[in-house]
Amino acid sequence: MVRTRTHEISTKGQGDAHDVTSVVARAVAESEVRAGIVTVFVVGSTAGVTTIEFESGAIHDLNAILEALAPSNGEYQHHLRWGDDNGSSHVRAALLGPSVTIPFRGGELMLGQWQQIALLEFDTRPRRREVVIQIVGD
Amino acid sequence: MVRTRTHEISTKGQGDAHDVTSVVARAVAESEVRAGIVTVFVVGSTAGVTTIEFESGAIHDLNAILEALAPSNGEYQHHLRWGDDNGSSHVRAALLGPSVTIPFRGGELMLGQWQQIALLEFDTRPRRREVVIQIVGD
Amino acid sequence: MVRTRTHEISTKGQGDAHDVTSVVARAVAESEVRAGIVTVFVVGSTAGVTTIEFESGAIHDLNAILEALAPSNGEYQHHLRWGDDNGSSHVRAALLGPSVTIPFRGGELMLGQWQQIALLEFDTRPRRREVVIQIVGD
Repeated sequence: MVRTRTHEISTKGQGDAHDVTSVVARAVAESEVRAGIVTVFVVGSTAGVTTIEFESGAIHDLNAILEALAPSNGEYQHHLRWGDDNGSSHVRAALLGPSVTIPFRGGELMLGQWQQIALLEFDTRPRRREVVIQIVGD
Repeated sequence: MVRTRTHEISTKGQGDAHDVTSVVARAVAESEVRAGIVTVFVVGSTAGVTTIEFESGAIHDLNAILEALAPSNGEYQHHLRWGDDNGSSHVRAALLGPSVTIPFRGGELMLGQWQQIALLEFDTRPRRREVVIQIVGD
Repeated sequence: MVRTRTHEISTKGQGDAHDVTSVVARAVAESEVRAGIVTVFVVGSTAGVTTIEFESGAIHDLNAILEALAPSNGEYQHHLRWGDDNGSSHVRAALLGPSVTIPFRGGELMLGQWQQIALLEFDTRPRRREVVIQIVGD
């Protein structure tokens, strides 16, 4: 069985993070799928999805290290291509990846207590994001 | 068909790595699922899973670069939140990700000869880890 | 339903990137699977798969930041093990990960317009790569 849900989020630009755990948990619980995997995937090449303890300190720390790695005001060949200013966004998104895949059983995500599913906005301006919640299982 | 297996590992703290390839291969072989994907997922927000040539040199090199990127004795806002000392652990885990998804066929993982599935402990103290092996296929 | 396709690519060594989006899209369209997930997985421990806007500037930028993070001429304990020179390749591959998992619906990948699926070669010499396209769904 496959169930597809989509979820839209308005973000505030680079560094903004959203906890989508409860949305994903509800989508799994409301499907008739009891055991399987759920892929949480962000459409677009300047955002990422991972798991993290979702508290403002840890989110700040992750963004700070991504800023050191791919500075927002650095020089990027991508800027020459389109006149864009979001080269740092593309690099961060490619490194973090667009999705996580999480197992569930008995209709419940097998996450740790302090392990949340986070959408991270890397683009340099506010965006409207579509998150696909793809449930595959029995 | 979906088959869920869990595997527990005692780790020694930050930098400790465990090769779980044989455990995952056996779980797939013993299931009745012949073709599909297996998601290897670590429960918790201070460990990660990836594939790597599992020899001590490569594991050391990966840990050394994560230490340069997110130093264990760095300053983290996460520390202010709970009085924790594992800000570096959270950043490393979020970057590496909690899981890998691997295809299999004829009951065998489609890995390269030098490509193993590794659990990496990033927390600053020994932990008991639960690894979920979620098999989905025909 | 599960459908397995493999795709071979000859690469030119470290930094070479290949857009496999159309190959994956065609594999999904030609399967009889309408909705599900596709895992794009590279066999081997010195290459990676992610999504990125596939234009030469962004590819250059990603490679430049990986070079700063894990320099190709750095010192690696992996080199001591086998006399290899590809320690940087192993670190980059483990960080980026060997696969992405992408949802599809109506036989079409749910990617963004500027979001392509990229194979990144990290090894220090040309390689023949096998990419597994594992389709799971209804």
